[in-house]
Amino acid sequence: MRISELSRASGVPTATIKYYLREKLLHEGVLTSATQARYDRTHVDRLRLIRALLGPGGLSVAKVRPVLEAIDHADEPSNELLGVAHCALVAPADPDRDLSRVTAILQRWGWAAAAKDRDSQAALLDALEAIDAAGFTMPPEALDGYAQAMLQVATMELAHLPTESPAEAVRYVVLGTVLNEPLILALRRLAEQHVSTERFAGPDLPDGD
Amino acid sequence: MRISELSRASGVPTATIKYYLREKLLHEGVLTSATQARYDRTHVDRLRLIRALLGPGGLSVAKVRPVLEAIDHADEPSNELLGVAHCALVAPADPDRDLSRVTAILQRWGWAAAAKDRDSQAALLDALEAIDAAGFTMPPEALDGYAQAMLQVATMELAHLPTESPAEAVRYVVLGTVLNEPLILALRRLAEQHVSTERFAGPDLPDGD
Repeated sequence: MRISELSRASGVPTATIKYYLREKLLHEGVLTSATQARYDRTHVDRLRLIRALLGPGGLSVAKVRPVLEAIDHADEPSNELLGVAHCALVAPADPDRDLSRVTAILQRWGWAAAAKDRDSQAALLDALEAIDAAGFTMPPEALDGYAQAMLQVATMELAHLPTESPAEAVRYVVLGTVLNEPLILALRRLAEQHVSTERFAGPDLPDGD
Repeated sequence: MRISELSRASGVPTATIKYYLREKLLHEGVLTSATQARYDRTHVDRLRLIRALLGPGGLSVAKVRPVLEAIDHADEPSNELLGVAHCALVAPADPDRDLSRVTAILQRWGWAAAAKDRDSQAALLDALEAIDAAGFTMPPEALDGYAQAMLQVATMELAHLPTESPAEAVRYVVLGTVLNEPLILALRRLAEQHVSTERFAGPDLPDGD
């Protein structure tokens, strides 16, 4: 298809497609003349991927680039790829930061492998320190409860990993990280609303009204 | 204590305390002369609350105000209060938006009460539409899995609701919503790292290395 057709098929304006081509986020089409190129289904898929990363994930072009490079160079899903996806989302951890508080928690859960992901550990430490600063105490059993729920989520996510092709698996891992965060937070709010209505209305009113 | 002591006790600069007083986010102290006032523990607690909402929650002063007003006027925790906390965090839903896709899902789960929270429903719809747009299909059992995990989280959160005073319960509901989102997302990433290492390294290597 021509660039105008690619634009219609993907919903991405032609000028934006040209920008992605210049930035090498999108691979070139096959030249059919000095000024025209032919694009195919792989270009449509790639545009969807770029839009998904730039859109709801809210990543910048600078952050999308290493994620796309990791996808291009990975021929199978791996932890390194998950690490790249996380890096694009999480602020990098200060290399001198003392993460021993978080490391001790991960040890307790037997999540030894997670100790390699310093950026996510620093994000957890930030969250715990913000809770402390607000004068809250998070009881260890509550933290364990959150961890159990997230272990359940992660186990389900990995169980649904597509196996038909490595590229599909890679796309699933990266986009699943970006796209499902808002989903999880929205579901938590709705679940809170559901549970709190049941609680405050008393157990005798099944619909909570 | 004087304003300088309040500043030391709370870690909030004097100029910022004066700004919060002018903005009526912080209640006035008891005047001890024409130019001096005495502050107490309630001011320290209030400053912690304001900083927690403005800090990691990343709310603006304009969004913090209705949350604080709800806390001041609620003498017991209620769903309305949870709604106020959610409103401060979630973009308001377009009143004309068709939420029937989400309503049907909530019906299936028996979360009828959650249907009142249109903002969180719209946030869920945004997330689902972004997943569609990226060319993904979220299988219903995966969505159910996320919902189950969040129901578990919400049940635990409401079970830990402090009962010693209504004010404490209210603070817990509002701040828990704001402060625990980054915690949950960091835990999910670490859990993914843990589960994926176990999976990609094979079950025979207990530490995943």
